[in-house]
Amino acid sequence: MKIYEFEGFPNPARVRIALAEKGLTDKVEFISVNVPEGEHQSEAFRAKNPSAAVPLLELEDGTCISECTAITEYLDHLDGNPTLTGGTPKERAVIHMMQRRAESGLLDAVGTYFHHATPGLGKEIEGYQCAEWGNHQKEVALKGMRYLDGLLADRPYLAGENFSMADITAFAGLGFAGFASIDVPEDCANLKDWQARVAARPSIAA
Amino acid sequence: MKIYEFEGFPNPARVRIALAEKGLTDKVEFISVNVPEGEHQSEAFRAKNPSAAVPLLELEDGTCISECTAITEYLDHLDGNPTLTGGTPKERAVIHMMQRRAESGLLDAVGTYFHHATPGLGKEIEGYQCAEWGNHQKEVALKGMRYLDGLLADRPYLAGENFSMADITAFAGLGFAGFASIDVPEDCANLKDWQARVAARPSIAA
Repeated sequence: MKIYEFEGFPNPARVRIALAEKGLTDKVEFISVNVPEGEHQSEAFRAKNPSAAVPLLELEDGTCISECTAITEYLDHLDGNPTLTGGTPKERAVIHMMQRRAESGLLDAVGTYFHHATPGLGKEIEGYQCAEWGNHQKEVALKGMRYLDGLLADRPYLAGENFSMADITAFAGLGFAGFASIDVPEDCANLKDWQARVAARPSIAA
Repeated sequence: MKIYEFEGFPNPARVRIALAEKGLTDKVEFISVNVPEGEHQSEAFRAKNPSAAVPLLELEDGTCISECTAITEYLDHLDGNPTLTGGTPKERAVIHMMQRRAESGLLDAVGTYFHHATPGLGKEIEGYQCAEWGNHQKEVALKGMRYLDGLLADRPYLAGENFSMADITAFAGLGFAGFASIDVPEDCANLKDWQARVAARPSIAA
């Protein structure tokens, strides 16, 4: 397997965590795509991923898979023992729901703020920007943090008792928020505790 | 199972199609939430779904599942024989990838256009609107249609040989586009053929 990515960026981080949790990191060849220089928008990369985004998983047979949830589904099912996306129908449902909420309510909202309401990766890479929408999404991200904080009052992880894909998404979202200078509200103690606990997992601390 | 929804709306349509494909429609009690009147934003409904959106699946034990992908995952795995979300790791990956592309590149883009750049459901329901972003998303939706049209040049369904969750999402997206007066470009013949074929499926024609 090959993973096209740019190390340290939030979506590639999601896949690196999933790989580590599944013990698959050594099975992957990582190929750096220079996103700050716009390499993800090149014709050569778009031929692999028309969405022009990293990470991208390329299988041995040449199949290219983009979208972090799709890549995580693949990695999680390779050994026939899904641990990140749920085993029973109900577990699957709760994890996919919480993943999507963490994505649209936090990670994607932070990304939209960064790419639209700040200089982002620079005029040439960003192209069209809509600052008004970006700033609105910053408010969405802060609301998302408060929502997740409330959830974590009565459970250790976002989808319940076990670490899952939803935690990976939210963890990447908080990291991106820090990078974009969106501070976690002072009173979100549950969320901060959870962030510290997740950061200490072997898959991430490594 | 109970499904809270508003019949005819695009996201509830996704779940109705999934139910019909799985032969589960008769097992569900449908509860209408009057979205045009703002009932989805009421405190009572938010207690079930903090995202204030339909559809919502309520299980016998009271667990509430929102987000169409999560609901579809649940329904598809109930009989231990997933047909809409893929059986092998690779099938799962391709379907989830295409589902997300159909969602962000078409259905959600049309929704953002409708809710932000048109009167949508009316001032009182919509609250904040950002017309500039809404109009930009109309262009995203048209680009999404052309992308899907290109894919369908060499395969019968979006994720390959079989009808899947990705087709359900895109079909709902095209329906919403029609409602919002975003016409499929004249030259997208593959997409129009696919739309007619999907519309003729027993799960939808019923």
